[in-house]
Amino acid sequence: MSDKKNVLVLNCGSSSVKYKLYEMPGKTLLAQDYLQQIQRDEYEDTIRGVFETLKQYRIDIISHRVVHGGEAFKQSVVIDEQVKAEIRSLSRFAPLHNPINLTGIEIAQSIYPELKHVAVFDTAFHQTMPPSSYLYALPYEYYEHYGIRKYGFHGTSHRYVMSRAEEMLNRPKEQLRLISCHIGSGVSITAIRYGESFDTSMGMTPLAGLSMGTRSGNIDPGIIPYIEEIEKTDTAGAITILNNKSGLMGVSGVSNDLRDVMEKAAEGHYRSQLALELFTTILHKHIGLYLARLNGVDGIIFTAGVGENSATVREMVCTGLEFAGVNLDREANRASKGEAFISTEYSPVKVMVIPTNEELVMATDAYELSFQ
Amino acid sequence: MSDKKNVLVLNCGSSSVKYKLYEMPGKTLLAQDYLQQIQRDEYEDTIRGVFETLKQYRIDIISHRVVHGGEAFKQSVVIDEQVKAEIRSLSRFAPLHNPINLTGIEIAQSIYPELKHVAVFDTAFHQTMPPSSYLYALPYEYYEHYGIRKYGFHGTSHRYVMSRAEEMLNRPKEQLRLISCHIGSGVSITAIRYGESFDTSMGMTPLAGLSMGTRSGNIDPGIIPYIEEIEKTDTAGAITILNNKSGLMGVSGVSNDLRDVMEKAAEGHYRSQLALELFTTILHKHIGLYLARLNGVDGIIFTAGVGENSATVREMVCTGLEFAGVNLDREANRASKGEAFISTEYSPVKVMVIPTNEELVMATDAYELSFQ
Repeated sequence: MSDKKNVLVLNCGSSSVKYKLYEMPGKTLLAQDYLQQIQRDEYEDTIRGVFETLKQYRIDIISHRVVHGGEAFKQSVVIDEQVKAEIRSLSRFAPLHNPINLTGIEIAQSIYPELKHVAVFDTAFHQTMPPSSYLYALPYEYYEHYGIRKYGFHGTSHRYVMSRAEEMLNRPKEQLRLISCHIGSGVSITAIRYGESFDTSMGMTPLAGLSMGTRSGNIDPGIIPYIEEIEKTDTAGAITILNNKSGLMGVSGVSNDLRDVMEKAAEGHYRSQLALELFTTILHKHIGLYLARLNGVDGIIFTAGVGENSATVREMVCTGLEFAGVNLDREANRASKGEAFISTEYSPVKVMVIPTNEELVMATDAYELSFQ
Repeated sequence: MSDKKNVLVLNCGSSSVKYKLYEMPGKTLLAQDYLQQIQRDEYEDTIRGVFETLKQYRIDIISHRVVHGGEAFKQSVVIDEQVKAEIRSLSRFAPLHNPINLTGIEIAQSIYPELKHVAVFDTAFHQTMPPSSYLYALPYEYYEHYGIRKYGFHGTSHRYVMSRAEEMLNRPKEQLRLISCHIGSGVSITAIRYGESFDTSMGMTPLAGLSMGTRSGNIDPGIIPYIEEIEKTDTAGAITILNNKSGLMGVSGVSNDLRDVMEKAAEGHYRSQLALELFTTILHKHIGLYLARLNGVDGIIFTAGVGENSATVREMVCTGLEFAGVNLDREANRASKGEAFISTEYSPVKVMVIPTNEELVMATDAYELSFQ
């Protein structure tokens, strides 16, 4: 009997379907696609189409991404009726994501009822946070009765880069204090202590924390009534603005894509210069937040679209962290490709670029669960 | 001709009137009182009563505290009609404070029309912040057209302790990077760079930043619609809860006074233990935010009710900042009275307790303006 298994990794987003088919444990990629801008009424047909396309392959197990796992899921699990009920109930925290994740699960189960289906949660990695990280300074009943707390997201990505940092630093994670910066269209920073998430910047929802492509991150809550007045809208309308019209987009007025903003900034466009400066300053400060949380660190990791590709952002973020032992090697930073160290040889804190690979974590989790 | 002048410092709060009469420049305190729990309809009579009481003294100049000075006031000014109009217009940002501050000014002017009246603003010290500190990652038009930005508060207190730190450290402020922690029923931290406020934790309103006695500080804005649903209220209702029922009060369920919370925590009350832990963890992390903003510091200052009096809080906040050169002297911390160093002799970062004295700054500003 061979231990080889084909794992389908399925990520059903709010308007996209992304999949990768891996042969495990060898991690050979057999097939992949990324279908975007799917309309709501085409969604089910699109997912069915994916399975039609994949008919030529043997599929042994399916790994589904689920955004919100609440306090119920501290790790990936094999999906049963109870798991589905829990995912459905957690839709209250992720109304744009959990229902669509569930749709993907149900279609896949109807086509492959005999297979094991696994759920991998964005929040699971952060379930190790202590109350002093996850509680808000709100009436405690909100947490007790309604689950209002910090959950954190991008957990699969933070977990992946942690395991790569372990290899790169050649030290077991149980000895490492790391700050992982996932900087894409969403942005989150996680303080990783001895292999576990200890604190993270996103909150109950992915709007929280740092400024992002279109998201404001945390702001003075006292501003919200003013936004409602200016825009003649209600709370939901104000939150939509904070989610979709803020961040780099709001400040620059140009784009939610940092590359566009940087291009405009280089041409002298004032608001783009402000947007870039604000974005990197907020990142820089938040690294300080987690430096304090961990009493210093062994390594800082940059990952995701911007984190992997923008040497300028990495340089702006790391400059001025010398007090904590962060010494960037500017040339190595400019030259970096793939996994790379970008700190100087004797920098007490190692700075790393690590391309993320959430799908590989999802495939690995499912593969391991397939033997249970 | 003598340069001696009697300066009346008047602080008209939303339900209190506090005054001190100083003989300047000698700083001799001639009279003082603090009238609390004043009802709205008694307010004018109370202020008139203060002036009646003070009839026995010569008053040469009156210094009024004004909470919000917006971008108009970068320092204390002599009050004229235009200044009053501006203070009135800034009531939109401080509806509970600026109107009452203005009432105090107008009554005082009606009784002492021949005197110079001076306004000292809580926000003025923070007007040196760069855009990367004061901007929010919101649509830029909100700043341009409506003044939505971070203003910061407690400026008079942060300015006072900075000037005292200069003396204690025997170095000019132009050479110093300081973190000033004002921890009272309100809490704010300021990064002071070469004598100027460079960043601060409070925002457009005093609700922002860290967790406080009854205030939540910054939270995931995405939580606000959930609070409205739970409490069956609107945005204004939710913001009121964040202002009045959160912070230490909300988490502990016991009190907004840290002394009560600590007493209960010591007795084993779980929610009080959580409240204390959360309160100090948030303080600890925010010091990291400003350590990064300043690339390390020369000194950290604790001031205001809790900052001056709670050795436990200071110890909890400073423990785990050793990575940045902060070495607390636990004994000196326990023993400290008045102005004191509480770091070890060779600690690269000096930690200081400095009792604040906003009234003295107000008296000094007014005294200096009296010669213009």
